[in-house]
Amino acid sequence: MKLLIVGGVAGGASAAARSRRLSEDAEIVVFERGPDVSFANCGLPYYIGGEIADRKKLLVTTPEMLRTRFKLDVRTQSSVEAIDRKTKKVRVRDLASGREYEESYDKVILATGAAPFRPSIPGMDLPGVFTLRNLQDTDHIKERANQGVKQVVLLGGGFISLELAENFVRLGISTTVVEKNDQILTPFDKEMTQPVVAELASKGVTLLLSQSAEAVEQTADGLVVCLNSGQRLPAQLVIFGVGVRPENKLAVEAGLEVGPRGGIRVNDYLQTSDPNIFAVGDAIEVKDVISGEQTQVPLAGPANRQGRIAADNAFGRSVKYRGTQGTAILGFFDRTAAMTGASEKVLRRADRPFRKVYIHPAHHAGYYPGAEGMVLKLLFDPTTGRVLGAQGVGGAGVDKRIDVLAVAIQAGMTVFDLEEMELAYAPQFGSAKDPINMAGFVAGGLLRGDHPQVDVEAVLASPAAERPFLLDVRTPQEFSAGHIPGAVNIPVDELRSRLAELPRDRKIAAYCQVGQRGYLATRILLQAGLSAVNIGGGYKTFKLFQPL
Amino acid sequence: MKLLIVGGVAGGASAAARSRRLSEDAEIVVFERGPDVSFANCGLPYYIGGEIADRKKLLVTTPEMLRTRFKLDVRTQSSVEAIDRKTKKVRVRDLASGREYEESYDKVILATGAAPFRPSIPGMDLPGVFTLRNLQDTDHIKERANQGVKQVVLLGGGFISLELAENFVRLGISTTVVEKNDQILTPFDKEMTQPVVAELASKGVTLLLSQSAEAVEQTADGLVVCLNSGQRLPAQLVIFGVGVRPENKLAVEAGLEVGPRGGIRVNDYLQTSDPNIFAVGDAIEVKDVISGEQTQVPLAGPANRQGRIAADNAFGRSVKYRGTQGTAILGFFDRTAAMTGASEKVLRRADRPFRKVYIHPAHHAGYYPGAEGMVLKLLFDPTTGRVLGAQGVGGAGVDKRIDVLAVAIQAGMTVFDLEEMELAYAPQFGSAKDPINMAGFVAGGLLRGDHPQVDVEAVLASPAAERPFLLDVRTPQEFSAGHIPGAVNIPVDELRSRLAELPRDRKIAAYCQVGQRGYLATRILLQAGLSAVNIGGGYKTFKLFQPL
Repeated sequence: MKLLIVGGVAGGASAAARSRRLSEDAEIVVFERGPDVSFANCGLPYYIGGEIADRKKLLVTTPEMLRTRFKLDVRTQSSVEAIDRKTKKVRVRDLASGREYEESYDKVILATGAAPFRPSIPGMDLPGVFTLRNLQDTDHIKERANQGVKQVVLLGGGFISLELAENFVRLGISTTVVEKNDQILTPFDKEMTQPVVAELASKGVTLLLSQSAEAVEQTADGLVVCLNSGQRLPAQLVIFGVGVRPENKLAVEAGLEVGPRGGIRVNDYLQTSDPNIFAVGDAIEVKDVISGEQTQVPLAGPANRQGRIAADNAFGRSVKYRGTQGTAILGFFDRTAAMTGASEKVLRRADRPFRKVYIHPAHHAGYYPGAEGMVLKLLFDPTTGRVLGAQGVGGAGVDKRIDVLAVAIQAGMTVFDLEEMELAYAPQFGSAKDPINMAGFVAGGLLRGDHPQVDVEAVLASPAAERPFLLDVRTPQEFSAGHIPGAVNIPVDELRSRLAELPRDRKIAAYCQVGQRGYLATRILLQAGLSAVNIGGGYKTFKLFQPL
Repeated sequence: MKLLIVGGVAGGASAAARSRRLSEDAEIVVFERGPDVSFANCGLPYYIGGEIADRKKLLVTTPEMLRTRFKLDVRTQSSVEAIDRKTKKVRVRDLASGREYEESYDKVILATGAAPFRPSIPGMDLPGVFTLRNLQDTDHIKERANQGVKQVVLLGGGFISLELAENFVRLGISTTVVEKNDQILTPFDKEMTQPVVAELASKGVTLLLSQSAEAVEQTADGLVVCLNSGQRLPAQLVIFGVGVRPENKLAVEAGLEVGPRGGIRVNDYLQTSDPNIFAVGDAIEVKDVISGEQTQVPLAGPANRQGRIAADNAFGRSVKYRGTQGTAILGFFDRTAAMTGASEKVLRRADRPFRKVYIHPAHHAGYYPGAEGMVLKLLFDPTTGRVLGAQGVGGAGVDKRIDVLAVAIQAGMTVFDLEEMELAYAPQFGSAKDPINMAGFVAGGLLRGDHPQVDVEAVLASPAAERPFLLDVRTPQEFSAGHIPGAVNIPVDELRSRLAELPRDRKIAAYCQVGQRGYLATRILLQAGLSAVNIGGGYKTFKLFQPL
């Protein structure tokens, strides 16, 4: 058995190590175009900012280590230029010497990754304009950043741009993020990005939404990024982080199938349209576990697991890759934004029925010092209650709740299962009713009909004539500090004695700060024979939909 | 409908609030013996130590709040003395006035809780000797602690004792913990408590195992705790935290069934042997979800959920309580110990087949600063791979992994599902191969036969003649810093070229530091035709079984 692995980072390195464990005898060659294998992609922004001080830390393993420990034939600076599927040979170019040669194979695993998209605008090749993919890019950006850069412009408001923004702020560099969509972090629903937008502002990062670069120009002082709005942003460092494209050239030229967005097509066994060629990682299309559709999810976790599975299958096992659910997380200073499964906009686009709830819990018992707030959004099937997706934004403990919900999605659990989850509780770690239980209670109450809820956007979007009577059940102090326009204030604790003040011929939409008092108010109103719903997630959720 | 709820803390307060939401018209009376309802039991040690500074924070809600918001008839300092099931009346004693009266009911929910066990030894009633159950106990202990206490003796090495120990250390009080078993935290397996024992020592807490108090005596200087070993421990404050007993007197006298350990018997609907009387919380027996057996799990999370479910059923719904899996967590300074599901000793006692693995991962990517170590123990069914239990001890991130595994147990997932979990990864939060994935890989490899493993205790316990050849595949530096007695050192990177040094007629047990290199070594040896197993969890696991 002779296995060639094209690409030696996440998926490729995993595939190589797994292959050796499966077979001591196999001839295993790893071709890597760059000088490094298996480096810590996700750490690159933190090395630029100095949080990771030692560059060697980014080298998860080295070619030498792979050679010695795994008896792998690792060839760095080696580019696989073509695959001849008929003769089962690849053509390799040694980038150092320029020499080309052929290598035969029994099986190939493609782990070619994805390349940062470089828009075709003038000035992309100017010194000081970068994309970030590997350690060499990192070195160049870090070198430049240390040469007295005062202003950086980051194109794209995705994960990497925001991670870079944190690090440039740390370096004391004035940072502007430009995003062509009307929101940052596009896998999230827009309202859930609002706390991150607020945090960007509080750290002094300028955010320009719905704008994009049309050119980068060289001036006497450095660079200028010219936006489609006409705005001109001076900078000494410009980084484009506007998405990635699967590196599919090798696959396409070899006649392998690729999807509409360029991802290499694979079956459940990560096999391409040629059964002797497997593909993994950022280069491939994967099945979305919620929608069942093909999509692209360029993330390290799935890439690593795919590498392992492709190796298994290359060596004659029969292991299915179950698909990807898009679990992702961003840390921006002390803020965390994390998600798993489908977003609301993905469900809308797919015309898939869903309901949603928002809760605003503390990450641990409120009576213990240091409780940090978060907002959790839960999306679920309106008939079965199956969890379809979740997003969380806040401080500590967001990662834990999204991981728990990721498992719930994997297991096909429902909101009724969330109600029953028995999670670890001591006051430093959670609450006797954990945020996950609370999300289950709110969603379960909705589906059981105990807790009729309406989405705040629906209330606000309804024509004036059909708009429900807005009832704010918070205290007068809370009400006067801000409320939904048009709302009338009757605190929940007075509601039973003031029912006569409410209309009997009109739907009442009650709300409080986060939803809990509004829920009780709704129960009181319903049982008094009034028509009532609770505005899910209360005033805090309303505020998520308001511009900052 | 007239509902009486006996007990107004966790389960009782939850039942009361839920009941009101279900019915505005019902007459709902809550009897609470103490002056407070719904206080934060789990916070009491931290108020004593001052971490929670404000006593009011411990009052999750007040009788007034329950009256106003939930229209509940809350009667504190009211003891329900008897239930007459024939006439459907209870006899109540107003503890303030001494007056007794009757109250009729349609349904009763018993939430009487559990009382700290007070051993029948001399001196239990001396001033300065306490148990800790409620705010009044807390006040007394705090008052005493502030009166120049220099030495405290905590009887029992359970969760509350260790939480108290942390707080007494914070107060600068010399602290001794006495535990009658040969380990602290008895729900855990002994080896998993070792890191906590080490932490106790590092904080200056004296731990005496396999000892118990035979008497407490008054001396001129204060108190002396007399142990069965003859040791005498001077102290000015003594707290017994040696377990709790269900408060079942009311139930027993009313002729309701109780289990062998005193827990009130309930069916899946939390109904006692009288269909009009429900019971919840620390007072009841619950079904263990792993063993299916009746057990007692006095924890706040289950009590709260049971209160909700009992209310549902009292109001004519039909909601099953699914049972309890014993998820629990301890924080001791920066150490965390958490568990869920069955322990090894419970499985052994039940004669239930299982396998186990240990892993020693960092809580997030090693290349990012601040990664903290942990040990995770995973117990699973040897045939199906179903997860049966998990224990984790370490620093940050232990709570997250145990919560994830708690959900896995709830969902009936297997170790193969753990391999595929897609958890949130960025270097501050986890690893591309999360500890959960790693545990799945190690356990899955074991069950698939790819990764034959042996438990280190089994190796050590085997008679010399049958003992395998012990092969340490770490570096010479690691080996010389400590190794399993009798082991021979061949670093994994030299193994392929030194196979001739190994016996062909004897089983080889390889090991490294945590299990990963040992796994590769095992693969190399097996494929070279030798008989080999890996010692699961490596040298670090061996060390867990060694006395400190």
